[in-house]
Parts: sequence; structure tokens; C-alpha cells
Amino acid sequence: MRNLKITVSYEGTDFCGWQVQPDQRTIQGEIEAALEAVEERPVKVHGSGRTDAGVHALGQVASFHLANRIPCENLQLALNHRLPPAIRVLRVEEVSEGFHARYSATAKTYEYRIWRGQVCPPFIRRYVWRLPYPLDEAAMVAAAPLFEGERDFRSLATGDGAGLESTVRTIYSSRLEREGEQLTYRVRGSGFLYNMVRNIVGTLLEVGRGNLRPADIERILAGRSRALAGPTAPSVGLFLVSVEYPEPC
Amino acid sequence: MRNLKITVSYEGTDFCGWQVQPDQRTIQGEIEAALEAVEERPVKVHGSGRTDAGVHALGQVASFHLANRIPCENLQLALNHRLPPAIRVLRVEEVSEGFHARYSATAKTYEYRIWRGQVCPPFIRRYVWRLPYPLDEAAMVAAAPLFEGERDFRSLATGDGAGLESTVRTIYSSRLEREGEQLTYRVRGSGFLYNMVRNIVGTLLEVGRGNLRPADIERILAGRSRALAGPTAPSVGLFLVSVEYPEPC
Repeated sequence: MRNLKITVSYEGTDFCGWQVQPDQRTIQGEIEAALEAVEERPVKVHGSGRTDAGVHALGQVASFHLANRIPCENLQLALNHRLPPAIRVLRVEEVSEGFHARYSATAKTYEYRIWRGQVCPPFIRRYVWRLPYPLDEAAMVAAAPLFEGERDFRSLATGDGAGLESTVRTIYSSRLEREGEQLTYRVRGSGFLYNMVRNIVGTLLEVGRGNLRPADIERILAGRSRALAGPTAPSVGLFLVSVEYPEPC
Repeated sequence: MRNLKITVSYEGTDFCGWQVQPDQRTIQGEIEAALEAVEERPVKVHGSGRTDAGVHALGQVASFHLANRIPCENLQLALNHRLPPAIRVLRVEEVSEGFHARYSATAKTYEYRIWRGQVCPPFIRRYVWRLPYPLDEAAMVAAAPLFEGERDFRSLATGDGAGLESTVRTIYSSRLEREGEQLTYRVRGSGFLYNMVRNIVGTLLEVGRGNLRPADIERILAGRSRALAGPTAPSVGLFLVSVEYPEPC
């Protein structure tokens, strides 16, 4: 059996997230259905991680085994032919037997887009969180890097990280930037707890509203309780940008 | 009564075009409903022209009379509050009594977006015509300006311009340009016949496929018959960019 790695982009709006669920339209479900048509038997697809309903991906990665010897380029064409246009396979690669999209991942990058303008262009409305209200953006920009480092992120995990061995993760970079009318949060880390990026954004928003000061981030992390941090930002603005692996895969 | 001009952007995907139709969701219908809520009686809205189902607008213009003395800025907020996010009012202006969005217009600009890449990013799929097949783009680029000038465009009008006094229009600029993986057609003219932009694009496509040569454009225009030109390009890639009026309105 060949081990294959695919890089996938999708608009999450009309899907119930990545993971297969009975009677729901999911990204994984659509990809498995397209692969089953090629392989002529069920194929189990492993994503680098789940994305929630409404979350988008610029470069989600998944892996699976295939007996069919179809060349990678033709498999890409066949999958894109069968998949809905909201899901596109950007690349198909042959990888070593040991590769697993989830367990081999060394880092992930997410982006969260906030639209600050009074009027949100119709063409990006599915890809941004609209926040046209006054916010102390300078305080938010100052607070963003305070999430960097090897830290216990339990306060930022929906469900307090229940069931996890450890809630310690390493954030390599956590930055907020104004780009025209868009406020973009970019975060790269070793891994992320459930809803962690959306909870960080929700916490940054509390800073922007003046309900928290940048100095409170330290206290929130140290307190190890979800109740200390801000609410969960909506899924609409979140993009999984890329997943990193050791080279060669 | 005040005479007001609004500039509107919309994603046409989920609407049956601009014009009000019974039991159909239309842009004009949505705007009239939002205005009726403000004015507390029906308001008739005049667009600069109709756009078909699926056609988008970056700067459609409409005008209407209002008794309500709400300031322009507040009216914009009120309309955007009531309208679906797929329709956004970009500007509201007080104009002279003689202004009419359709009859006062002096020029219009349209853009048609063709995606040439093998893979179309999910996030722009509603805004481009996907054509990943080989095309003689150089011939298409050469043919595009041949539509410029004061000409009889009857061959480019769906329905041969039936019912129109004249099928003569002036095209000030007609250009096709590669922008990364996108092929963009931009046309500015005094006015456009029914489906004229989409029929020009369909004709340019025939040039790209080698079924027509740039030199055939002259013959097609001179023949004054819709049968001579190419098919109608789909609505998905078409944007009404802007409508021009004499200053001040």
C-alpha cells in the first residue's frame, strides 16, 4: 500500500467541520467519498487535526493509504473532479510509510481575520469576523506576543483540556497586525488545544475592549482555568494556514 | 421629497438578479424592503440597469425619493443593518431632483474574471469563470480592443437588441489582461446591450480556442446578427464595477 499526503484548501462555511459525523456534510467525509470512488473500497483519511464547523483551511494536510497506483498528479485531478468546489486538493505527494498527517506534524500556523471597517465587502463576508466597534488595537497588538513560549495553555482550551495528557504547548510566534481595514492575528505553534486560537482571539478582544490589560495575560495563563480568559471568537474568521513536517516526509 | 443616490456592492450568487420579480429574492427587492422599513411606505428604487442572476457588483448605483429626513450616514447604517450581508450600501448621497440612476448615467465599467489555474481557490470560486484549458491568450488580448469605438453592437446583444431604438453604443476601452492566474477583461462604455459583456467574453473565448481570429471581430460586428458571435459567458465571473454621472449629480 502507498502512503499519500494531500494538502487541502477549503471554505468551511457549508460544512460541519473536518471530522466525519453521521448524516453531516464534513470535509473528511467528502474526501473519503472521493477516494472511495477512486480506490473502489473505503479509505480512511487522517487529518493533521480537526477543524470546527465554519473554519477554513489554506493548507490542511491529510494522509491515507491507497492500493491504486494512479500517479499523484492524476489523483489530484480525480479528487478535484469529484470534490465540491469548496474543497480543493492543492497537492498530492508520495510519503514514507511512517508518515502520519497528525502524529508527524511538528508545527501549525493559523490566521484569524477581523474586519474593522464600517462596511464589510460582500465578497469576504464569509472569511472575516466583523468588528466595526472601537477597540484599543495598540493594547491588543501589545498583548498578542505575550502568548509566545512554552506555556501551559489550559486557560485557553475549551473544556480545560479535559482528557489530555498535557496542556503545555509551545507558541513560536503570536502576532496581531493591521492590514488596511483588516486586523490579522497569526500564530505558529507546536500544537494547539481545542478552540485555542479562537480563545486567544476572544481574549485579545477583551484587551481591546479594556476589560483586560496586556499584563493580565500572564495571570490568565498561570491561573490554568478557562473561566479566566475571554470568550471563544466565532469560527468564520479562522484559517488553518499550514502544517509543518520534518523533511523529507 | 429628497432625491437620493446610493452606491451598492453585492454578491449576486444567491439572488435572481437586480430586478424585482414575484416570489424571487432580488437585489432591488431587498433594497426596497429595507427602504420601506425606514420610510414606512413602499419606495420605488431605480437602478442604473439590471444585472442578471449571479452577476456581482462592486459599485452599482440606484436612486429613489424619500420623505424621511434621516441623515445620509444614518440611512446607510439603517439599510446595511436590514440588508443581508451579501448586499452592502457603500455610500448614500443627496442629489438634485433631476438625477436618475439610469437616465443620468454617462458610462459604465464592467469586469469579467476568468481563472486560468488548474486549481481554483475555494474562496474565489463564486467570483470567477474557471477555464483551466489551453487558450491562445495572445490572440484574445489582441482581439479585445477591436470592440472599442462607436459601433453597432447588435451581434453582441442577446435577442439581437429587439425592442431597442438603437443598438449603437460607444466602447471607450476594452482590454484583456493576465493578472497571475486570472485573466481579467475590463470594458468601459457609454452603455451596454443585454448580455453584451458576457457575449463579448464568449466571443473572445472563441478566439482563444482558435475558432475565430481577431480579424473576425470586424466581420461579426458588421454582420449585425447574434448568430455570428460566440456564446454567452456564465454570469459567475461578471462584475459591474462602476457607473459614471456628470458632476455634480
